[in-house]
Amino acid sequence: MIRRSIFENISPLDHRYSLNEEDFSKYSKYLSEKARIKYQARVEAALVKVLAGRGICSESVAEEVSKAASEIIAEEVYNEEYRTKHDIRALVNCIQRKVSPEARPYVHFTTTSFDIVDTANSLRYKEVSYDLVIPALCKLEKLLMDIAIREKNTIQIGRTHGQHAVPITLGFTFAGYVSRLGNRIRELKNKSSILAGKISGAVGAYNASHLFFDDPEEFEREVLAELGLQPSTHSTQIVETEYMTDFVHALISCFGVLASISDDMRHLQRSEIAEIGEHFDSEQVGSSTMPHKRNPINYENVKSLWKEFMPRMNTVYMDQLSEHQRDLTNSASARFIPEIIVGLMEAVNRLIRVFKRFAVDYENIKRNFEMSKEMIVAEPLYILLASYGHPDAHEAVRVLTLEAEKSGRNLRELVLEKQELKAYLDKFTEKQKEILVNPEKYTGIAAEKTVRVVDYWKKELGL
Amino acid sequence: MIRRSIFENISPLDHRYSLNEEDFSKYSKYLSEKARIKYQARVEAALVKVLAGRGICSESVAEEVSKAASEIIAEEVYNEEYRTKHDIRALVNCIQRKVSPEARPYVHFTTTSFDIVDTANSLRYKEVSYDLVIPALCKLEKLLMDIAIREKNTIQIGRTHGQHAVPITLGFTFAGYVSRLGNRIRELKNKSSILAGKISGAVGAYNASHLFFDDPEEFEREVLAELGLQPSTHSTQIVETEYMTDFVHALISCFGVLASISDDMRHLQRSEIAEIGEHFDSEQVGSSTMPHKRNPINYENVKSLWKEFMPRMNTVYMDQLSEHQRDLTNSASARFIPEIIVGLMEAVNRLIRVFKRFAVDYENIKRNFEMSKEMIVAEPLYILLASYGHPDAHEAVRVLTLEAEKSGRNLRELVLEKQELKAYLDKFTEKQKEILVNPEKYTGIAAEKTVRVVDYWKKELGL
Amino acid sequence: MIRRSIFENISPLDHRYSLNEEDFSKYSKYLSEKARIKYQARVEAALVKVLAGRGICSESVAEEVSKAASEIIAEEVYNEEYRTKHDIRALVNCIQRKVSPEARPYVHFTTTSFDIVDTANSLRYKEVSYDLVIPALCKLEKLLMDIAIREKNTIQIGRTHGQHAVPITLGFTFAGYVSRLGNRIRELKNKSSILAGKISGAVGAYNASHLFFDDPEEFEREVLAELGLQPSTHSTQIVETEYMTDFVHALISCFGVLASISDDMRHLQRSEIAEIGEHFDSEQVGSSTMPHKRNPINYENVKSLWKEFMPRMNTVYMDQLSEHQRDLTNSASARFIPEIIVGLMEAVNRLIRVFKRFAVDYENIKRNFEMSKEMIVAEPLYILLASYGHPDAHEAVRVLTLEAEKSGRNLRELVLEKQELKAYLDKFTEKQKEILVNPEKYTGIAAEKTVRVVDYWKKELGL
Amino acid sequence: MIRRSIFENISPLDHRYSLNEEDFSKYSKYLSEKARIKYQARVEAALVKVLAGRGICSESVAEEVSKAASEIIAEEVYNEEYRTKHDIRALVNCIQRKVSPEARPYVHFTTTSFDIVDTANSLRYKEVSYDLVIPALCKLEKLLMDIAIREKNTIQIGRTHGQHAVPITLGFTFAGYVSRLGNRIRELKNKSSILAGKISGAVGAYNASHLFFDDPEEFEREVLAELGLQPSTHSTQIVETEYMTDFVHALISCFGVLASISDDMRHLQRSEIAEIGEHFDSEQVGSSTMPHKRNPINYENVKSLWKEFMPRMNTVYMDQLSEHQRDLTNSASARFIPEIIVGLMEAVNRLIRVFKRFAVDYENIKRNFEMSKEMIVAEPLYILLASYGHPDAHEAVRVLTLEAEKSGRNLRELVLEKQELKAYLDKFTEKQKEILVNPEKYTGIAAEKTVRVVDYWKKELGL
Repeated sequence: MIRRSIFENISPLDHRYSLNEEDFSKYSKYLSEKARIKYQARVEAALVKVLAGRGICSESVAEEVSKAASEIIAEEVYNEEYRTKHDIRALVNCIQRKVSPEARPYVHFTTTSFDIVDTANSLRYKEVSYDLVIPALCKLEKLLMDIAIREKNTIQIGRTHGQHAVPITLGFTFAGYVSRLGNRIRELKNKSSILAGKISGAVGAYNASHLFFDDPEEFEREVLAELGLQPSTHSTQIVETEYMTDFVHALISCFGVLASISDDMRHLQRSEIAEIGEHFDSEQVGSSTMPHKRNPINYENVKSLWKEFMPRMNTVYMDQLSEHQRDLTNSASARFIPEIIVGLMEAVNRLIRVFKRFAVDYENIKRNFEMSKEMIVAEPLYILLASYGHPDAHEAVRVLTLEAEKSGRNLRELVLEKQELKAYLDKFTEKQKEILVNPEKYTGIAAEKTVRVVDYWKKELGL
Repeated sequence: MIRRSIFENISPLDHRYSLNEEDFSKYSKYLSEKARIKYQARVEAALVKVLAGRGICSESVAEEVSKAASEIIAEEVYNEEYRTKHDIRALVNCIQRKVSPEARPYVHFTTTSFDIVDTANSLRYKEVSYDLVIPALCKLEKLLMDIAIREKNTIQIGRTHGQHAVPITLGFTFAGYVSRLGNRIRELKNKSSILAGKISGAVGAYNASHLFFDDPEEFEREVLAELGLQPSTHSTQIVETEYMTDFVHALISCFGVLASISDDMRHLQRSEIAEIGEHFDSEQVGSSTMPHKRNPINYENVKSLWKEFMPRMNTVYMDQLSEHQRDLTNSASARFIPEIIVGLMEAVNRLIRVFKRFAVDYENIKRNFEMSKEMIVAEPLYILLASYGHPDAHEAVRVLTLEAEKSGRNLRELVLEKQELKAYLDKFTEKQKEILVNPEKYTGIAAEKTVRVVDYWKKELGL
Repeated sequence: MIRRSIFENISPLDHRYSLNEEDFSKYSKYLSEKARIKYQARVEAALVKVLAGRGICSESVAEEVSKAASEIIAEEVYNEEYRTKHDIRALVNCIQRKVSPEARPYVHFTTTSFDIVDTANSLRYKEVSYDLVIPALCKLEKLLMDIAIREKNTIQIGRTHGQHAVPITLGFTFAGYVSRLGNRIRELKNKSSILAGKISGAVGAYNASHLFFDDPEEFEREVLAELGLQPSTHSTQIVETEYMTDFVHALISCFGVLASISDDMRHLQRSEIAEIGEHFDSEQVGSSTMPHKRNPINYENVKSLWKEFMPRMNTVYMDQLSEHQRDLTNSASARFIPEIIVGLMEAVNRLIRVFKRFAVDYENIKRNFEMSKEMIVAEPLYILLASYGHPDAHEAVRVLTLEAEKSGRNLRELVLEKQELKAYLDKFTEKQKEILVNPEKYTGIAAEKTVRVVDYWKKELGL
Repeated sequence: MIRRSIFENISPLDHRYSLNEEDFSKYSKYLSEKARIKYQARVEAALVKVLAGRGICSESVAEEVSKAASEIIAEEVYNEEYRTKHDIRALVNCIQRKVSPEARPYVHFTTTSFDIVDTANSLRYKEVSYDLVIPALCKLEKLLMDIAIREKNTIQIGRTHGQHAVPITLGFTFAGYVSRLGNRIRELKNKSSILAGKISGAVGAYNASHLFFDDPEEFEREVLAELGLQPSTHSTQIVETEYMTDFVHALISCFGVLASISDDMRHLQRSEIAEIGEHFDSEQVGSSTMPHKRNPINYENVKSLWKEFMPRMNTVYMDQLSEHQRDLTNSASARFIPEIIVGLMEAVNRLIRVFKRFAVDYENIKRNFEMSKEMIVAEPLYILLASYGHPDAHEAVRVLTLEAEKSGRNLRELVLEKQELKAYLDKFTEKQKEILVNPEKYTGIAAEKTVRVVDYWKKELGL
């Protein structure tokens, strides 16, 4: 058995990002090479169980095989593969060696390697989604929901083009994250739950199984049902590739939402903006030469991981093309899909940690808002003037803002001085006038919408 | 108005792939710049219609605006933009010029540019999907279904790794295409139908509309309902990006299926394989110096288009990251999404043309099958030996095939000579023995499955 | 001849980004379909010229063909292609029709379509690089150099992680852009200048030309020399793909530098930072509803174009794989390379426009620097303490900065109060002490380096 | 120290593709996390060596640090990082602990983390290129050269579109691979040799080093010269990104050539073509259920690895964008570059193994050629007719080939019967006539060109 220091490994997922042993052992349970073989053995066992159910072999044969399969370890399969140069044949040989001569013929009965490989992969990706990925995403989602609700009334300047626009609330900003992440969790649930298996033989026509069964499709359904899977609508040597394509798209597009949130946070932590922060550990060093810095390293890391994993979708798209009943040029590439899942998990877990100690700098968020308080009035002013019949309100306000900027004077004062506007201003309701005086009230329905969005996703995701 | 010869254009979509004027005018109706502006004007009209319904303005104002919007042409908007440097403001100015002073204030009332831009894009992508893309894909799907059914009993050698494996039927091969394409049509229906709009203002908090309405979300729903759209669950200046991400993924992954089919066809047209072909026009030239060639140019073209458009998904993934309430670095990139749709349509239309004149070379498909007839027996033989208790059937058959290959003799003869196999062979049923004699019967349930798959997708897609 | 309004076109490159007719006609001269055919005709003419030089045909034949080639227009070739279904055969037929029966056999003599296609593409991409792309990049480079030199002493706070670090000068920032862009211009020069042609026939072995020449490679060199090109070291039906791969990589990686510069500028234009700006036209509208905004639309546009074009490198990488002597699945995809060049040109021209009216807000750049003035001292302090023997300087300063932050006091004052530091401080030279007092002097050699970098690239690029 | 079974690892590079311990230990020496830290320590040692050379510290201090640096192991750095949360500070602390109090201040003197990180990465990527990657590529190149020369006269049918075209030789096919791979080796040499380092401090302006040196750029050059590196022309906190971008492009485009070769080989191994093969180990199992198969698994694997790694270039392009003096969103992504190098090495080593046992099936290669022997005549016939004045040779031959195909007769016979062609045929030289009789002579200069290409690259690469 080859053991080595993790620091001899090549992939950061196997050294740097695997340091948290608790997290890593969870990933490894589904996504390591060991796990891959365990899941394949589980498929082999399910197969023989159904054979017994159909009376092809005895129940005791099924039990023997099930026991043998559960005892398979990666090392023995690799040792056998070294001899046979074929991974599934090696697995089959290993199981056969552990069972009685009577049971041997039923191991792998009528199936082809990829009945086992594709089914086992769908199974473990479905299970890791439901056992680890979705729960972690939901944990993050709940943290975002909490912040959204907590900060639903915290006035924040809205920003478009990096420029101050009109006000929202910090909670409303987070409601956007809640909604986008919620949407991706739902998509991931949908696409992982239908990951499909196959027990249809070398080219998908049930050639071998049909030698023994009149209803080979039913036989396939039974084996897959043992594992909680559905069959691919049609298959060749492999399951239709689009189930996996959609699944990885769900992962990657979810990663995009995490990167988007992280980008926002990075910028909100800029020295000049500094609206949010994070409690640092007392011994943590910010930078090797600049001991005073507070760096948004967690958000940077999430964006960086996204840059690493996003392009891998191209691989999955290329793997849609497999010649005829299969060309095997997806053999190595498909082995890297676990990296994507672990990459996403690292990002999620990191965001969970950072949002747990999320801190708002209320002074700065207010200061930033105040910077543009005067100018914010421009939008409602233009709209109200227009609504009360001003023929060219947008232009009139544009000219006024330039004047305010040049003269250094207050837009609201200037407005009141303009005789040509008076007739319109007189028509404003009290509520409308108030917004001109207190621009911080100009947040639309930010707070209510925040609550509604959070409630919607709570219900939708069962949180 | 700038007019030019199409041959002065840069994009192949605007010269080479736009030569079929009938097809092109259809694409252009939804996907040109002209179309973009038409759709935006339609959103502006819907807005005022709802204002009238709520009594904010009169019905006659709504009619005026609706008429003006329907008369907007791209040139005038561009001329106006040249002055204002802002595309939606230009559109609004153009509409306003066409209506009475009374109506002017209600044009674009309370909305921000991207209320119009994003809503109009969702609308036209949804409509082009339902009016053009899905119907074309369904037309192709039906052609594939017809071929599948017609050839459901045509024996073809199954191929994995480019190597002969065990037999299927040509119809079964096509059933695979039917299933994968059907699956993508369903996905495209789902994802295009939920493309979302927004009427929530500059930063998504309904800041401006809330000045006039207590129920701005209801107001948004009404405007979008006029257009057959739903609102984004949450929005900032823009609709949540994931609706578009999923939509483009549906397009790109559908393109992957077309490329995969085309790759198969290319290889089946290889000189040495030559199982399929296409009726050439009598005047068509195959190659400039090799007048005898028959080149799979249509399938090559489809794969080539896929290579061009598939990577554009990366752009869409990058566009998921938009800072704060929006950063506008998706402004140019999103303008290229129509190229993807037209690229896909070109591929679909080309495949429709080529599958209409799809020809099978029954002689060659039979010849190729016969090549491996002897060796095909290996798989059922091994499985049957195993099932009747042979302790190491796979190895026994492997050794036999090597012997057959070396000696140039027939595998079936060799089998019968081996005394150690006799006991097992005697147990074979008649049907099982027959497959050893007539390997062409070893097609599993290829024909029945073909019918079932075609029926399933006919029903699922309502074809 | 098909003419249409540009607004009916699909690609933004053929409507929105082609509005500047002067720029567009320049691109079109090299990169339109018309240009493609012109260049191909030029290759056909060069071929016959060399035939005449070798005495295979008469000089007058070569002149006839040269004249005919120069008169070819796209429309006639397309009309002919409509009949023959082969683009180069169509071109050849069109040329042949314009020459005497005597000249006809020499048109396209011994060549295959891709001798013409690949050679013409290399030729036009090389010429457009030298005539348009590199000159535009150099123009931009000079603007960046001017800004670098002009602002070489303008103190700016250096930023890492979006956090204030230690000071540089704005000129030094621009020197970085000068260097990175200079490096890409050099790469583009190198890789465009070696774009290769071929006159080696259908499969690259000079099968046909060898029927007539004992030295077909020399013949190839002569034809290509007429066009200023070199032959591919080896060719099949096509030129080795790596020349084009490197060329497009040079374009794409150059685009990345433009995007990187643009991203920096966008952030420097943020409301809270606002160190730079751009003079707006008086009639320009910033936003449809927020007339006071100043949006970094040009930089956003450049980044957005980069997002659109960067992923297309994947297409070029996929096109490296062409089966055997060629598989033609690069036929459509290679037609889109002009889009990449035009996309880059749009970005370059836009940056030229924007950097021409580049404005620095000296007040804000100073204000931002002042924000962190106190804390900047931390780095030199730690380094100097260490250099004078403090055993744990980094930690000592880290603790001090935390104290400064908590107490709201000045780091320099605190330092002077600490008895345990006195011994070290006494050893500081005057120059070293001065940096603690005037942190704006702590810019290293920013100004000198700026000059040196600019000088280096001026010389290297011959500017 | 965390040790684990390789089968618990996530990345196939750390389990499946690391089984060959000899290969893996070589990769690990440069590309593991352990190696990363070793190289960083080496940079720290070089720094102090130059300090001593300049008299800043004593030679014995430099020796102490050098010894300490050489003893650093990954585990202690990680343990320290666990406390400090900063990887380079951890390294510095570890080195400092191993040296005398007198030496401590000189460790990491005036540098910032990324002076060490970027320099160490450039160093190890340059060294692994020169020590492992280029030698392995050259080994493969030599195998390809051997095959090219050996088979330079083996007639093979040239193929375009997967269709038989005109003949070449197998050696000529391989000369194409030699040339493309040679070109990439040269590019990789060029781009790896100029990977740059930096010792310019936190924001690249030599802020800290200038406190001590009047010539900080010279100081930087000295430190880097110790390591055999050059400085980046300009730097911020990081080296200009384009050195790395070009380096990874060289790797990825080299990978593309390997994938292209592999694709060709896969198809030449198709059952119907079967021109090449590979000697299988006697115990190897081809497929779990089809013991007779001979699968091109090695070539499939190389293409599959290419699909996995090619898209990672997108990450590198995205990493060109780093805000201001650096944003650190390349922190995680850059850690995955070693995966690309190992992926490429796996592919190279696999191809070396497979080309060592490369086998040609001379019977089949001849059989395939014979298939199209008759039709091959079409090209020279058309060209010769044209050259002797036939006014429409291409069309005349096209019609003839259709007639030959329909009638099942021999093209050469038909030609001789046509009275209208006689006048032209009489003018053919003997050599020209011979090609019509023996189409296998129609290979142009395939054999000579093969030799010339091989010679060129032998010289160019010093092989």
